[in-house]
Amino acid sequence: MNTFGERLRLTTFGESHGPAIGGVIDGMPAGLKIDLAQVQRMVDRRRPGTGPTVTARKEPDRVEILSGIYEEVTLGTPIGFIVRNQNQRSGDYEQQRHTFRPSHADYTYERKYGIRDHRGGGRASARETVARVVAGAIAMQVLSGLNIEVEAQVASIGPLAIESEEDMQAARDMILEARSEQDSLGGVIACRISGDIVGLGDPVFGKLQSRLAAAMLSIPAVKGFEYGMGFEGASLRGSEVIDEFDIAPDGQIVTMTNYSGGIQGGIANGMPIEMRIAFKPVASIARPLRTVNDRGEKEIITTTGRHDPCVVERAVSIVESMAALVILDAVLCDAASVLES
Amino acid sequence: MNTFGERLRLTTFGESHGPAIGGVIDGMPAGLKIDLAQVQRMVDRRRPGTGPTVTARKEPDRVEILSGIYEEVTLGTPIGFIVRNQNQRSGDYEQQRHTFRPSHADYTYERKYGIRDHRGGGRASARETVARVVAGAIAMQVLSGLNIEVEAQVASIGPLAIESEEDMQAARDMILEARSEQDSLGGVIACRISGDIVGLGDPVFGKLQSRLAAAMLSIPAVKGFEYGMGFEGASLRGSEVIDEFDIAPDGQIVTMTNYSGGIQGGIANGMPIEMRIAFKPVASIARPLRTVNDRGEKEIITTTGRHDPCVVERAVSIVESMAALVILDAVLCDAASVLES
Amino acid sequence: MNTFGERLRLTTFGESHGPAIGGVIDGMPAGLKIDLAQVQRMVDRRRPGTGPTVTARKEPDRVEILSGIYEEVTLGTPIGFIVRNQNQRSGDYEQQRHTFRPSHADYTYERKYGIRDHRGGGRASARETVARVVAGAIAMQVLSGLNIEVEAQVASIGPLAIESEEDMQAARDMILEARSEQDSLGGVIACRISGDIVGLGDPVFGKLQSRLAAAMLSIPAVKGFEYGMGFEGASLRGSEVIDEFDIAPDGQIVTMTNYSGGIQGGIANGMPIEMRIAFKPVASIARPLRTVNDRGEKEIITTTGRHDPCVVERAVSIVESMAALVILDAVLCDAASVLES
Amino acid sequence: MNTFGERLRLTTFGESHGPAIGGVIDGMPAGLKIDLAQVQRMVDRRRPGTGPTVTARKEPDRVEILSGIYEEVTLGTPIGFIVRNQNQRSGDYEQQRHTFRPSHADYTYERKYGIRDHRGGGRASARETVARVVAGAIAMQVLSGLNIEVEAQVASIGPLAIESEEDMQAARDMILEARSEQDSLGGVIACRISGDIVGLGDPVFGKLQSRLAAAMLSIPAVKGFEYGMGFEGASLRGSEVIDEFDIAPDGQIVTMTNYSGGIQGGIANGMPIEMRIAFKPVASIARPLRTVNDRGEKEIITTTGRHDPCVVERAVSIVESMAALVILDAVLCDAASVLES
Repeated sequence: MNTFGERLRLTTFGESHGPAIGGVIDGMPAGLKIDLAQVQRMVDRRRPGTGPTVTARKEPDRVEILSGIYEEVTLGTPIGFIVRNQNQRSGDYEQQRHTFRPSHADYTYERKYGIRDHRGGGRASARETVARVVAGAIAMQVLSGLNIEVEAQVASIGPLAIESEEDMQAARDMILEARSEQDSLGGVIACRISGDIVGLGDPVFGKLQSRLAAAMLSIPAVKGFEYGMGFEGASLRGSEVIDEFDIAPDGQIVTMTNYSGGIQGGIANGMPIEMRIAFKPVASIARPLRTVNDRGEKEIITTTGRHDPCVVERAVSIVESMAALVILDAVLCDAASVLES
Repeated sequence: MNTFGERLRLTTFGESHGPAIGGVIDGMPAGLKIDLAQVQRMVDRRRPGTGPTVTARKEPDRVEILSGIYEEVTLGTPIGFIVRNQNQRSGDYEQQRHTFRPSHADYTYERKYGIRDHRGGGRASARETVARVVAGAIAMQVLSGLNIEVEAQVASIGPLAIESEEDMQAARDMILEARSEQDSLGGVIACRISGDIVGLGDPVFGKLQSRLAAAMLSIPAVKGFEYGMGFEGASLRGSEVIDEFDIAPDGQIVTMTNYSGGIQGGIANGMPIEMRIAFKPVASIARPLRTVNDRGEKEIITTTGRHDPCVVERAVSIVESMAALVILDAVLCDAASVLES
Repeated sequence: MNTFGERLRLTTFGESHGPAIGGVIDGMPAGLKIDLAQVQRMVDRRRPGTGPTVTARKEPDRVEILSGIYEEVTLGTPIGFIVRNQNQRSGDYEQQRHTFRPSHADYTYERKYGIRDHRGGGRASARETVARVVAGAIAMQVLSGLNIEVEAQVASIGPLAIESEEDMQAARDMILEARSEQDSLGGVIACRISGDIVGLGDPVFGKLQSRLAAAMLSIPAVKGFEYGMGFEGASLRGSEVIDEFDIAPDGQIVTMTNYSGGIQGGIANGMPIEMRIAFKPVASIARPLRTVNDRGEKEIITTTGRHDPCVVERAVSIVESMAALVILDAVLCDAASVLES
Repeated sequence: MNTFGERLRLTTFGESHGPAIGGVIDGMPAGLKIDLAQVQRMVDRRRPGTGPTVTARKEPDRVEILSGIYEEVTLGTPIGFIVRNQNQRSGDYEQQRHTFRPSHADYTYERKYGIRDHRGGGRASARETVARVVAGAIAMQVLSGLNIEVEAQVASIGPLAIESEEDMQAARDMILEARSEQDSLGGVIACRISGDIVGLGDPVFGKLQSRLAAAMLSIPAVKGFEYGMGFEGASLRGSEVIDEFDIAPDGQIVTMTNYSGGIQGGIANGMPIEMRIAFKPVASIARPLRTVNDRGEKEIITTTGRHDPCVVERAVSIVESMAALVILDAVLCDAASVLES
């Protein structure tokens, strides 16, 4: 359950306040050049404390590759890596040892396992996603060499659609305002996959949209996924959303429109794959909330500490990472669809 | 890629115009009483030709259980089953042998495999879902014995929200009108899972919402998935969507609201799981459409034959089936979370 | 647990006295020509009742392909198939409903599941292997097109090594004699895989010998597996079993000897893979045996009915089938070891 | 391919001369007390340099647990761990960069991947097994709490059967003699699993012997596996190897003999599981050997450095580890065989 993918498999481990977060990438083909400095940069982009609106927690998040890459080239063997946890003021979390934070995973972990690492969410912390970004950064480099691009961006913050840099500035003001009111904001991220993707995906349960949805819904705080016309398309008529075929000047078969979002029957048709992912506003707000403790008593809890009032901007690299893992996995799965003798 | 699930695994096979659609359910526990007549009834509910607005194609769809159930009790061995295809007028499809229907999987299958069974969509046909409903009907019976209920219903047809039987009647008129205009309609299905579900689901990549999303996006024509407050929640503030805890009169820990849709950190908190699934309007409409053929030439195609102008109502049992498979799988996965010695 | 393989996955189902034995082959590449008459012939070869020393049970064992092959070419979609069970004199088995046959699976199934289909072994019957032979026959045809050959033969029957057709005649006499004495015989099958196999297999847990061993030990009655020098090699010195390298006249790198049995570090080195599989003498002998029943009482049981006194000859096609499935799976896994952009 | 197990999954990574060997254990139930000092002791037992006959290479092999265990209790989350590589005199291996050592994996890795970490075998080095022993040591502790014991011992070294401590002393002399003659020895390890194991294992492809064989054949240098009467039983008659049933004084159903080696139909019958594993003599001997290099030229290679002349004694803990992983996995798989509502 901590492994993702079919042919390219990422297994992750780590609690937010344990010694390290880490992962193993299995199935990566051999002979691929990897720029590890670029991997570190993508991890930095995800890091908290890099903008005015985000938490001030300082985590260097240095990626240490332990295997699978030798002299900057992949060996075909599993790529193990870790990112040490820093700045662990576990004392901050003593109050959470017995009391469940509302809309967090404290209660569900306790019910399921009868035990949990209560410090900062433990395994349920979004800190776990650093391992995904390490793997995603590697996958994106490989995809780039295959002429496949994955790109995500913020589509909205709270009620505000983001269509320009000015919109983003306004959104950041809105986030600071929410923080000052001890509140938080959600948003939507749009992700687009383009390039040499025709034929990726598999029928029935291996549909590309099914794997992308599973990937996105596994990200903390994600509550919805749609691709192509998505929910809006459900209210339209067939004649409004059919993608008729055409032949491009270069002789390629294309569709005149892309209402389908680049996938038909679970398999990419070569047009860009376009999807949208909804993030809820984070539950860590500095207001007193009604809750219960593990003795079944009612309590009031007030979360203190450093928390992002909005994780959407930081989540862009996580969305890209998960998309890249799905697509590279699909590339590897596709390699055996037709045999060459 | 034709297998779904971790512990409870459904493998399906079959093309729409081959001899049969079938499946194998592996991992079903032993000793469970199964009412096979009830399985047949649920399959009948999915069948085309059962209402005024749906296609007139007559398919008896008789379920034949081949193994795994003996004297109406599960053996713990795999349950193999088939549903023979009937009424195969393959001749109807000769025009599709070389020409790709827009917004269908004809082109993507051809690109991926270099070959396809062109008759009625082949493996990409929604007929494949009959195997899911057989498995889902069995899973629902088992869940019922565990005090877990899965129930789906139509939430909207085209632009019309369905909140009553009158709304549904109006929707059926709208569907007939769309058909008369050689057009089609989409819609949204809402699904609710309730009962003894607390603790189901797993961290990180095994999150319950991730598995449900993968399940729903694997259904033909589905373009979106959301749970709890979904996309709407992304525009709200944290203080508006936090589910504070309370203690019910029976001593159970509950949440005062259910904005989270019953899942926190990937694990069910015991409140009902509530989700919504968006279906696009079907692409089989009886209008001439611009397309290309497998020689790379432009053509006009007009789909004839019997096609539903709206599949949403029939898809209710498919949504329930997939939800039931995910939940029973989660029950089995959960069985080993804590060891009893 | 009823699925075998990574990329090429065979899922089987069926009890010996239920309606049918069947299977689903998932992951078979598209566009491969399959001679279905040849598949039927290989199934016939496995069939009981085809030689003087084997059981007289008559089973036509007609293979019915239900999907995945259209106009004798693979579609890339799952190949579903069934073989109906015939000649089911379930009444013969009424005495076994409550009494456990020694050295059969009756007791272990009852302990595990609390229920079993007692008729002729149910799921534990060797009849299950007919599904493996169907799949194996298809895999062997595909391998043949890739210049890979799988060939098994009887190496010994009871204490008698089989090195010629005369030996085999003597063995058949020995089997008839064992039957007349209400006894049974085991034996050893040797299997050899040759051709374009260099590079097949994966490191660590995906070692080719590990997958072959798993495949062979999953066959009913198999008690041992060895490859290369096997158990004998364990008593020799390193200097006696090292395979030094040489260059063949055609420029290929070869080894001067093949003590390693064609695999080094889990990966085929291009020399023939050679292995040996030990089969125990079957437990169904017509002598009174001491046993217990499901009420915990001691009983004497005498198995009647038609039983092979020696299954080794019939098992040759099963060994070949399992070897072929492992090798074709390894071919498909290997397809993504190095990416071509 | 670097993951082992169904419900309890061990994923390993690491090259012998990279920064670290490591692993992730996923699926371990929550709430289990783990004695980490005992884990370290079992790893020490595997370590080279601990006896007179083994290599002098000094590796502290300190196990560092990174997640999944908090305050010495399992959390139900993945257990990540690493063991740093020490004493890496990579310079020793420069001669192996282009030249293939006979009967090692150098050539097969090069053929498969077109690249390899040539230093000391890289991923193919037996050093990889340290991760298995960490996981196995944890599994053995859990099994002990379930009243299941796994115990392996040396059964033979070279041609010498080991039945007493005196035999073992004689074997050690023989090993020293082999070393002085620049040669090496193989041997056989016997492994026994006993206690509350009845019902473990699954039908068909999940047979317990199949999983045990896969586990054992994945260990470097293993060439054969047998259980119960194994290869010897193949030459006997059915009447000689049938295990008749009896009722023990405590009312348990037992077999009078254990020719079957504790498994029938793939499922443990409660009697001890007994198996034997054949190890070849290691290929690293200090003699000049004929080989080729990666330019296709013939060469003579003489392996220098510290190498065990016999790995059998050190492999005992590896065999126990793999057996423990298989059995605990089977326990977890079995947890969902029968549902309790």
